[in-house]
Amino acid sequence: MLAELKGLNEECGIFGVFGHPDAAQLTYYGLHSLQHRGQEGTGIVVSDGKTLKGVKGEGLVSEIFTAEAMTELTGSAAIGHVRYATAGGGGYENVQPLLFHSQSGSLALAHNGNLVNANSLKHQLETQGSIFQTSSDTEVLAHLIRRSGFPQMNDRVKNALSMLKGAYAYLIMTETELMVALDPHGLRPLSLGCIGDAYVVASETCAFDLVGAEYIRDIMPGELLIINEDGLTSEQFAMSTTKAICMMEYVYFSRPDSNIQGINVHTARKNLGKRLAVEAPIDADVVTGVPDSSISAAIGYAEAAGIPYEMGLIKNRYVGRTFIQPSQSLREQGVKMKLSPVRGVVEGKRVIMVDDSIVRGTTSRRIVKMLKDAGATEVHVVISSPPIKNPCFYGIDTSSKEELIASDKSVEEIRDLIGADSLTFLSVGGMVEALGQDSGYCLGCFTGNYPTEIYPDTLQYYYQRG
Amino acid sequence: MLAELKGLNEECGIFGVFGHPDAAQLTYYGLHSLQHRGQEGTGIVVSDGKTLKGVKGEGLVSEIFTAEAMTELTGSAAIGHVRYATAGGGGYENVQPLLFHSQSGSLALAHNGNLVNANSLKHQLETQGSIFQTSSDTEVLAHLIRRSGFPQMNDRVKNALSMLKGAYAYLIMTETELMVALDPHGLRPLSLGCIGDAYVVASETCAFDLVGAEYIRDIMPGELLIINEDGLTSEQFAMSTTKAICMMEYVYFSRPDSNIQGINVHTARKNLGKRLAVEAPIDADVVTGVPDSSISAAIGYAEAAGIPYEMGLIKNRYVGRTFIQPSQSLREQGVKMKLSPVRGVVEGKRVIMVDDSIVRGTTSRRIVKMLKDAGATEVHVVISSPPIKNPCFYGIDTSSKEELIASDKSVEEIRDLIGADSLTFLSVGGMVEALGQDSGYCLGCFTGNYPTEIYPDTLQYYYQRG
Amino acid sequence: MLAELKGLNEECGIFGVFGHPDAAQLTYYGLHSLQHRGQEGTGIVVSDGKTLKGVKGEGLVSEIFTAEAMTELTGSAAIGHVRYATAGGGGYENVQPLLFHSQSGSLALAHNGNLVNANSLKHQLETQGSIFQTSSDTEVLAHLIRRSGFPQMNDRVKNALSMLKGAYAYLIMTETELMVALDPHGLRPLSLGCIGDAYVVASETCAFDLVGAEYIRDIMPGELLIINEDGLTSEQFAMSTTKAICMMEYVYFSRPDSNIQGINVHTARKNLGKRLAVEAPIDADVVTGVPDSSISAAIGYAEAAGIPYEMGLIKNRYVGRTFIQPSQSLREQGVKMKLSPVRGVVEGKRVIMVDDSIVRGTTSRRIVKMLKDAGATEVHVVISSPPIKNPCFYGIDTSSKEELIASDKSVEEIRDLIGADSLTFLSVGGMVEALGQDSGYCLGCFTGNYPTEIYPDTLQYYYQRG
Amino acid sequence: MLAELKGLNEECGIFGVFGHPDAAQLTYYGLHSLQHRGQEGTGIVVSDGKTLKGVKGEGLVSEIFTAEAMTELTGSAAIGHVRYATAGGGGYENVQPLLFHSQSGSLALAHNGNLVNANSLKHQLETQGSIFQTSSDTEVLAHLIRRSGFPQMNDRVKNALSMLKGAYAYLIMTETELMVALDPHGLRPLSLGCIGDAYVVASETCAFDLVGAEYIRDIMPGELLIINEDGLTSEQFAMSTTKAICMMEYVYFSRPDSNIQGINVHTARKNLGKRLAVEAPIDADVVTGVPDSSISAAIGYAEAAGIPYEMGLIKNRYVGRTFIQPSQSLREQGVKMKLSPVRGVVEGKRVIMVDDSIVRGTTSRRIVKMLKDAGATEVHVVISSPPIKNPCFYGIDTSSKEELIASDKSVEEIRDLIGADSLTFLSVGGMVEALGQDSGYCLGCFTGNYPTEIYPDTLQYYYQRG
Repeated sequence: MLAELKGLNEECGIFGVFGHPDAAQLTYYGLHSLQHRGQEGTGIVVSDGKTLKGVKGEGLVSEIFTAEAMTELTGSAAIGHVRYATAGGGGYENVQPLLFHSQSGSLALAHNGNLVNANSLKHQLETQGSIFQTSSDTEVLAHLIRRSGFPQMNDRVKNALSMLKGAYAYLIMTETELMVALDPHGLRPLSLGCIGDAYVVASETCAFDLVGAEYIRDIMPGELLIINEDGLTSEQFAMSTTKAICMMEYVYFSRPDSNIQGINVHTARKNLGKRLAVEAPIDADVVTGVPDSSISAAIGYAEAAGIPYEMGLIKNRYVGRTFIQPSQSLREQGVKMKLSPVRGVVEGKRVIMVDDSIVRGTTSRRIVKMLKDAGATEVHVVISSPPIKNPCFYGIDTSSKEELIASDKSVEEIRDLIGADSLTFLSVGGMVEALGQDSGYCLGCFTGNYPTEIYPDTLQYYYQRG
Repeated sequence: MLAELKGLNEECGIFGVFGHPDAAQLTYYGLHSLQHRGQEGTGIVVSDGKTLKGVKGEGLVSEIFTAEAMTELTGSAAIGHVRYATAGGGGYENVQPLLFHSQSGSLALAHNGNLVNANSLKHQLETQGSIFQTSSDTEVLAHLIRRSGFPQMNDRVKNALSMLKGAYAYLIMTETELMVALDPHGLRPLSLGCIGDAYVVASETCAFDLVGAEYIRDIMPGELLIINEDGLTSEQFAMSTTKAICMMEYVYFSRPDSNIQGINVHTARKNLGKRLAVEAPIDADVVTGVPDSSISAAIGYAEAAGIPYEMGLIKNRYVGRTFIQPSQSLREQGVKMKLSPVRGVVEGKRVIMVDDSIVRGTTSRRIVKMLKDAGATEVHVVISSPPIKNPCFYGIDTSSKEELIASDKSVEEIRDLIGADSLTFLSVGGMVEALGQDSGYCLGCFTGNYPTEIYPDTLQYYYQRG
Repeated sequence: MLAELKGLNEECGIFGVFGHPDAAQLTYYGLHSLQHRGQEGTGIVVSDGKTLKGVKGEGLVSEIFTAEAMTELTGSAAIGHVRYATAGGGGYENVQPLLFHSQSGSLALAHNGNLVNANSLKHQLETQGSIFQTSSDTEVLAHLIRRSGFPQMNDRVKNALSMLKGAYAYLIMTETELMVALDPHGLRPLSLGCIGDAYVVASETCAFDLVGAEYIRDIMPGELLIINEDGLTSEQFAMSTTKAICMMEYVYFSRPDSNIQGINVHTARKNLGKRLAVEAPIDADVVTGVPDSSISAAIGYAEAAGIPYEMGLIKNRYVGRTFIQPSQSLREQGVKMKLSPVRGVVEGKRVIMVDDSIVRGTTSRRIVKMLKDAGATEVHVVISSPPIKNPCFYGIDTSSKEELIASDKSVEEIRDLIGADSLTFLSVGGMVEALGQDSGYCLGCFTGNYPTEIYPDTLQYYYQRG
Repeated sequence: MLAELKGLNEECGIFGVFGHPDAAQLTYYGLHSLQHRGQEGTGIVVSDGKTLKGVKGEGLVSEIFTAEAMTELTGSAAIGHVRYATAGGGGYENVQPLLFHSQSGSLALAHNGNLVNANSLKHQLETQGSIFQTSSDTEVLAHLIRRSGFPQMNDRVKNALSMLKGAYAYLIMTETELMVALDPHGLRPLSLGCIGDAYVVASETCAFDLVGAEYIRDIMPGELLIINEDGLTSEQFAMSTTKAICMMEYVYFSRPDSNIQGINVHTARKNLGKRLAVEAPIDADVVTGVPDSSISAAIGYAEAAGIPYEMGLIKNRYVGRTFIQPSQSLREQGVKMKLSPVRGVVEGKRVIMVDDSIVRGTTSRRIVKMLKDAGATEVHVVISSPPIKNPCFYGIDTSSKEELIASDKSVEEIRDLIGADSLTFLSVGGMVEALGQDSGYCLGCFTGNYPTEIYPDTLQYYYQRG
């Protein structure tokens, strides 16, 4: 069950180019800068105007694409994908872009997000004789496009998109066109840029900086962008749209050097930290952040509170997929991976430890213990977002309600569980205010108010394990 | 020539354990935490009391040691090594520990540092019929021990060590003993710790934190530590000793969570940054550091100057050895790897960019340009160490005098060359003062005063390219 | 075009087990013994009664299945496949068994043979909205089963099979059943055996010898065998059947230690050689065969002719997929791979060189030249089958009519082209007689009389290159 | 102990080129044709006149040398080596050619054979301070050359060679010369050939056929050939020489397409088989040989006896190093690797099974059982060489006396043990006569008369396990 649940919960990154002689290379570098959005698998499909050709595999961008493989990916349009590491799911088949050949032409798909009616649609399609070769919900779109009665490709795509519910940023490539679609709430980030005459699209603007592209604008909710030899056309495929970008993109998921809706993520995080210093003033000696994602908030907190920011925790790099995990007995003897405390910084100090969120609480408990073992006299945990009380149905793996510690525990209970001297969450209002815009966010995981209907067959995955 | 020069200039990390059933596993994790000291190659040799067995290879710790390989490394004593990536040198043979078998017993060697009389000694030994199978200077010690006339192993080792000049932290393992030696100036860091009854040694204390070991003390200059079943004995093999730890270990090389001579490296760097703010007050909007090594100094500068610290530059992770470098034409179009500017942070701002050192100046020029291209109105470069005017002969690859930009250029000339609006180096006095101890440092690369004699055959490598 | 043509022409091997705790291991060894039938790719799907799980990849059996992968393939039923190396086709997707998951159950397919109406069926199915993810014709069956209206699985399979035309030996596995189907002419070999209570099926009986299975009988034309917990049931799905086993299985394709229809392949080949000695008596010093497939025929010829059999040609082994081919210039200097002449055997001798068939004539020309360069005074080529004048539509890659040298050239013209002193083909009558059974063979490639209708869309692939 | 014993017993193949622009490529193909002489490891060292550069590794020629590696091996002289798979020994260090660098020049060594005084020499050299980095006896020569007092290289080499006892074919390469040496009894085969102006040397002439080289002559016992820019010079380094080529090269080890001392190996084997038919006439239905090495002898026997030769046993190919061996339980159920019986050929027949030799008897017992299980009514084993009663000290792994079944068992006892209906060995006299030359063979393993003195430290390895 877990595997299937995880299968529904992937977070990913996508990148596309149209009209550049080095399309595959640019996609390679673009995907590399989006690697934090998914390390399980990656693929690139390229079009030379006549055929679609792809390379994909399970692993990192730097592992899957060899120099030899890249020389074969010739063409001026390309789309690529990085995929989130799910526990039990996965498999080569599910690595995207998905590539479909038929006697009437080929189609490649890359998807970031999660559909909430995938199972209903799959069920309908299978009843009609469709065979699904992947367990991802992405493939549903291909079957819908294929079965749509419209003669024109763009009409078939719009028709198919209109049946999808949930979160999706889609790149759809045929031999001659690159289509870009964002769900009617714009739940996932997706931006448009250019390099000279060529267009690029990416989940995050950090990819533009890396490949030297100029940012144009964000894709709009419910927009279908069609890029081909004649240039760029924009159409709306949804009746009504309301912006509701995932708040966790700011809080945790995106890279600090990306801008979402014109707001720099590092700055946003720093502001969350500053706001936290106002909401939760604490008398302490040092402020430290949990690397990497909470460093910005910690710096913001330190700056606003006037307490020195120190590097009290350090992350171990170079850990690849072949890394041997310590045995239970070694872990009990104190061998730790990933995160180490910096004794020289925390010993004998009252420490404010800033983190971006608490999901199950196990990581927080481990870090608090680590800091205390290294000599911290007090550890005050401040979280730069509100308690996550509800699951996400839109592609972030915040797991089932049962596994969310805040779903049924009070702040004091959580504090006790993680062993902190105090625990403070940012308020929902404070968070929204700190970002400087009143609305336009999906706050579902904090508030339980979701921008879309949630289908019974989706809910069932989340609750049946209770 | 370059390759040989590089061969002399390796910086590395070493780790050893005696008396623990999981000796090889602990060494694996220890080496992993020392990975920043060398990414070219790595090896572990383990002793089960009767034989020495090893695994080594060119690559990262996580690449070379497979789970299968580790299961074969059984025994309660182990030494390991990570090796610095030299340009043209390298090769499997040179990966350490070196392992020598003879009819009278085996010997494994791991070395961090650089001998200044290696070539003289090699020449003498070859004249006497020795055959060298590696191009590293480490092997010299094995031949000296072999040819020493003393009947007892520890006397032979002391006798051999007394002939070496230069920088060395050596781990020497036989079937039944682990010997640990540090040169008479203690140029390289080396610390002793324990896990229960077992002893551990490591180039940096961060390795102790990772494996759950307790720090005991630093190895003393000219000390030979002998660890065997009977416990630990310490002897001095050098007539006179003077502490002269490499200053660059604090400035750049070591991990911020390590302590050297009781000083935490992150704190030391922060103090260097604070001192810099005093020596070079600048009117600016944001302070940023070049990741990763200059972040601490930048935070210190920001704190002391009262200017906000921001993440103006970001490092791309996940870049392994198979990463495809962008072609010249793509680089010209703006594709960049490793470091990206964060436009949202620097655009329209006067930026203070803190870096730890300038070697050739090419990296600094590139970063300054990157920040200006991203919209910084001014870029002030402040360096948390003095100008490097002289080569290092003790194992840090600061190259020949000709390649050190500060060896023949004034600060103003360098500023002009890197395109900064201003450039400030920390003073030598300020640096020493900031660390809080008046003496005990090797400042050779800044001042040209070296703690040891430099041999003609070493100098020739450094100067003949002029 | 070539790739697609090749795609239609695959020859393969299949192996299945039902009811044995080591099902996957047995399949591994079974596939290994069928490796000569296909070296491009291989896969195994296993059922533990509840789910189907598979491993597949491009490469040899010994390359794709690691010890680690095998430990995960637990279950008591398994099917496997080895795939023929096509020039341009291929790709991970096309490696079999194909595995299809749906909400109502899973299905795995392994296919040896070639359908002649695959394109018509594909076209119909795509028009109805099916999406094909492979370019192989095997997938057609999955869609036909899926769309069949019958409620019972075995009826759906029979219904689907009845729509296929051409050559096929199919293994079809669900969570609880193994189904085995052979086309109404029995064009491909397929045998049933047992190991204790477990059933095994294999393309060739040599697989039974290797895994220690007992041979029961050959699968009959038009038979559908259903093996499940209740045992084995046999049904006929075809109205009328006529045995027409591919003659090239005897002549060239199968392993000499296999029996087809009760006739040992080595013995069959030896009899072809003996018959040839009668039809083409030649005055010569030595008889030699082209390894490996023509050795048996050569021994038969030598025995019947009373001329010594000698090892005049030798094959180089150990050539894997990473083998570096000699450059053109080295080939011109005489560097040869695969086959070498044995100078000590042929020098100064009149040589009878026995080969099993001539397709394009280029290989024969090369070998004749090789023998003459090594000193043979005369080279008489005798072929243990008649001239191949027509393409095969049933899965052996005998290529298009245009590439068959015998399709438009006389024996004398071919002899001249390959540079032989004489050339003799076995007569069609002689061949059939030598095998000892009057009928029951497909002789299409020799005579142009095919046992099935050939569809226009298949023909077009073969002739449009003219 | 076993490992060390094996270490002394390696059989290998060597190949060298001087004066050809594609030296490394030719060596690659040459080594490929010698692959049967050693599959454990392989290496090539090339000289471009100034430096020696090498690639080596554990595995097959096709695995170790990648296209990329080959492009770096530029130069017009090269030597290469394939190494026999020893059970416990091995390791990268022992893979040859060994390459030694010193300040006065480099030296590469490739060795086929085994020294009988290696341990004495090693002991002496270690006492004098030499450090050995390999456990092979090959390295001894490098140290002897290094320590020789003569000023000229060729004198040092001759001086060093004169101290060696045992079997050796050595290729010795410096920056500018290729030296070729054969021990005073010529125990191992070594031939000289040419490609235009370039010289080639190889363990077997089959390598010449593959690379298109012309055979010139065999290297003479005690000869040192020096090839450099000025051409070829030949010197004798041994006082007295007596030809004693290893008989097992004819019987088992060499490839049938090689000529040794002008005799073709296939023809030699066939003659051994014919002689056997005279010495041991048996009333039977079929003759079969154990592939691959006994096929020639079996054909000879069949021809002389007038009994049909049949393919009663077949070898499974494609088994690489990653092949998964069947578990004990599967082996007991009848899963067999490598060799299968051909039921269709042996069922109900009286079979004469020709094999080249019996070492421990276990393989013979297994094959006899296999044939009987497949239905053979009688199995008569005939061996095309005499009983091996004594160990080989010259490089063929015939193991210790204790493991040789014929060392203390009579023919009848062996027959009983292997379960054959009759067992016949060829007589020593018959064997020598069949080869057509009265003397010039080493028959040590059959007769116990060795051409060289055997040193106590060598004997001790062979006998101490008793």
